[in-house]
Amino acid sequence: MSFSAAVITLFPELFPGPLGASVLGRGLAEGLWSLSATQLRDFASDRHRTVDDTPSGGGAGMVLKPDILAKAIDTVAPQGDPRPRILMSPRGRPLTQQRARELALGPGAVIVCGRFEGVDQRVIDGRALEEISIGDYVLAGGEVAAMVLLEAVVRLIPGVLGKAESHADESFENGLLEYPHYTRPQTFEGVDIPQVLTSGDHGKIVRWRQEQSMELTRRRRPDLLK
Amino acid sequence: MSFSAAVITLFPELFPGPLGASVLGRGLAEGLWSLSATQLRDFASDRHRTVDDTPSGGGAGMVLKPDILAKAIDTVAPQGDPRPRILMSPRGRPLTQQRARELALGPGAVIVCGRFEGVDQRVIDGRALEEISIGDYVLAGGEVAAMVLLEAVVRLIPGVLGKAESHADESFENGLLEYPHYTRPQTFEGVDIPQVLTSGDHGKIVRWRQEQSMELTRRRRPDLLK
Repeated sequence: MSFSAAVITLFPELFPGPLGASVLGRGLAEGLWSLSATQLRDFASDRHRTVDDTPSGGGAGMVLKPDILAKAIDTVAPQGDPRPRILMSPRGRPLTQQRARELALGPGAVIVCGRFEGVDQRVIDGRALEEISIGDYVLAGGEVAAMVLLEAVVRLIPGVLGKAESHADESFENGLLEYPHYTRPQTFEGVDIPQVLTSGDHGKIVRWRQEQSMELTRRRRPDLLK
Repeated sequence: MSFSAAVITLFPELFPGPLGASVLGRGLAEGLWSLSATQLRDFASDRHRTVDDTPSGGGAGMVLKPDILAKAIDTVAPQGDPRPRILMSPRGRPLTQQRARELALGPGAVIVCGRFEGVDQRVIDGRALEEISIGDYVLAGGEVAAMVLLEAVVRLIPGVLGKAESHADESFENGLLEYPHYTRPQTFEGVDIPQVLTSGDHGKIVRWRQEQSMELTRRRRPDLLK
């Protein structure tokens, strides 16, 4: 069984979208992973296909109704479906490379995309939705966030990236930001490629890259070193 | 002058994509912001339209060539263009709601989407690219990251969100995660909406929400309270 992603959204037409391009798209076409997008509105019970209502206690925006969303989740992932159920939300735990790796080893994910002001807390609790945030900022909806999550996860599925595109040296894979890269031409606007990189001394190159990684992380992301 | 976004990418066909949907798409159609996507490959000088080369010093993957990318940037944003030049990169400073707000007040953004292993450091330095990361994970390319950045920014442009969709109570706008939401039905799977929310006592509701916000933030994101 390959990794199977199911997205519940008010904008199913946005999928696969960017996930259909490049290496992820190739993996999708080759069956290394699969993707479905389900229209939440199809589970509404009135003729206006209403999915939201005003927040209890007042306030701005609209809230996704728990009954409609529960019906959608139960249809897409009936009891016994082993996939984690995820709600993209700025209130969630931040997505990490570690969580992406865990998800990539699993059977897939059922991902709920919020819209409007939020989702009724009772369906988050009742369906044990894992709230995941992709960062400390607010989006208009969960769709692009779901794409980020899936892109981070799917590229880790064996076979999706070519051999040439290794993971070992990447940012966060070793807890540090990645060292700077250089390629031809040898001189660009009067600046040469650092001499060490063209020295042919592999040991020196490895040490230089480690130092550069450490130095950049210290300067830009001291929080990662804690 | 409305907010003007220019994206440099190997996949211009992915734009506007999700940015063309919902409120952002409406704002785009109404001219509240504009978007162009430029094919980096158009600036290659050989007949294979090569944009990358092997990394100096060895290692996996390919590196975007500085000369080609510089030509693309200089064409899209000639000297004097007031827009910040941004490179989506996991090595960057994390995107925050604060940075999104600043960008939303400005003239727009020129956004470079990386692919492959990375971008030659000399063009990052030479064109003073501001490296922005959307989170501590690795993507296959900068395109979806650029969409995240633009979605976070564009929704803050006056007029893009309707009045009903206010920003005041959102996660991060006050340094806390947002309180839980509830809406009808009154009872969902045996669970009632918390009584305070239907009490009609506005002061009590405000206090309850503040407590819930604080409690959730303490439990899930103590780092935000520092």
